Amino acid sequence: MTHTQTNSTTRRATLGGAAAVAAAALGVGLPAKAGAAAAGRRTPGPRIGILLYDGFSLLDPTGPAEVLSRLPGATVTMLAERRGPVPVRTDTGDVAVVADRSLAEAGRLDVVLVPGAGNDGTIAAMENPAILRFLRQAHRHTRWTTSVCTGSLVLGAAGLLGERATTYWASKDYLESAFGVTYVPERYVHDGRIITAAGVSAGLDLALYLAALLTGDTIAQAAQLAVEYDPHPPFDAGNAAEATPERKELALRLLEESQRRVPPGHSRS
Amino acid sequence: MTHTQTNSTTRRATLGGAAAVAAAALGVGLPAKAGAAAAGRRTPGPRIGILLYDGFSLLDPTGPAEVLSRLPGATVTMLAERRGPVPVRTDTGDVAVVADRSLAEAGRLDVVLVPGAGNDGTIAAMENPAILRFLRQAHRHTRWTTSVCTGSLVLGAAGLLGERATTYWASKDYLESAFGVTYVPERYVHDGRIITAAGVSAGLDLALYLAALLTGDTIAQAAQLAVEYDPHPPFDAGNAAEATPERKELALRLLEESQRRVPPGHSRS
Repeated sequence: MTHTQTNSTTRRATLGGAAAVAAAALGVGLPAKAGAAAAGRRTPGPRIGILLYDGFSLLDPTGPAEVLSRLPGATVTMLAERRGPVPVRTDTGDVAVVADRSLAEAGRLDVVLVPGAGNDGTIAAMENPAILRFLRQAHRHTRWTTSVCTGSLVLGAAGLLGERATTYWASKDYLESAFGVTYVPERYVHDGRIITAAGVSAGLDLALYLAALLTGDTIAQAAQLAVEYDPHPPFDAGNAAEATPERKELALRLLEESQRRVPPGHSRS
Repeated sequence: MTHTQTNSTTRRATLGGAAAVAAAALGVGLPAKAGAAAAGRRTPGPRIGILLYDGFSLLDPTGPAEVLSRLPGATVTMLAERRGPVPVRTDTGDVAVVADRSLAEAGRLDVVLVPGAGNDGTIAAMENPAILRFLRQAHRHTRWTTSVCTGSLVLGAAGLLGERATTYWASKDYLESAFGVTYVPERYVHDGRIITAAGVSAGLDLALYLAALLTGDTIAQAAQLAVEYDPHPPFDAGNAAEATPERKELALRLLEESQRRVPPGHSRS
């Protein structure tokens, strides 16, 4: 422990109080600030609202939020039926995210994004009149109304889907039978002003596509580098069309068993 | 609006109150529950603690949490110096995540994950004695102590890095000079019981690698399918080794300009 302590002290001394040096060394202090930012004023950019509701899948809203928040002047706001202090819990109950604005406080939005959820959460959102009303009203003014995973079913319940859409791989039959749309097995499907993404992690690919629509390819590509999105998973097992029935069943069992009830006292409903 | 309303009503009638049918149609109700889950008891699985601190990058902890929470019996706990109700804000100030336990309440952990942050957040964490003490103590008992992005610099400040590690691409020089380790430009680098991941989105690849270590390839591959991680970004721009100086500078500028100060009243310090 003494050895570690000594090393640590030495290492911290290298940083010392010289935050400017450390900042340059970390690499983030290098580029010159653009005019607006240097003046303490941000150029107005896209207003992005992300809907949270109990039982959402954590990565569905947070992946896109990470990417879209990097666009020049962008504001990303987490919205829910009621805003904090009571946060919105994920389907596993493990993580709680704060909604900074209620649906009534959302204001005019350029992009709305609806995440997916476990079964209970998705069905509750599809049957929630306040959420459906919000989506229909917001869609009148958005440039793009978007979803990740089973979020497309919530868009469907709001009557907003067009002829083609995507969703979580296990929900494709439901999507087609309930809403009469053609399921397209792509990472994201653009149909008019509606853009739907496939399951969970597909929100990252959607977000880069949206970034290009909002700000052009050059900035979108820089945003991809900003989040070092050069994916190399250790397996090539994420495509349902290539999965065995055994892997599909195991994947669904992992989901079902991890989707615990929302802990008492954390429910928003 | 009437047309939409009618469609929506019809569509919701298809779901109706038949949640069981809807659940089966959504695909998640199909597999039989495993014994432990059916009995309302979860098989004890890996205990995973994810450190939050002000200014963290949103995807760094949430990507891995999404994947790891799907492992059988896993518990994923968001930890911070102080637990909620005051949440921990991201570097952009846009999103706040609740820490359900303080560092003192963390208990014995199988895996600790340290996310990265913007400059200010990273430096503050590297200089925070409570965080460094927690990491050193937790590391005595973990199976793997891990990081995403500049989280490896925090592990370095705690004296926990070995000979090889990775970090955010723009921080590689700092990593090498401050901690005397060799930067390896891979998505994740496993050195002893320390596993470091590259920037932001690399946490997803790390999480699947960890999933395989914790539960074997079969479950890890099913977890990959569960989150439909079959990445196809619209651009191939996320690898710093292949980026032009212009793209690198723009990426760093996007980060710098998006890293707003934590809004007043939201600071934890």
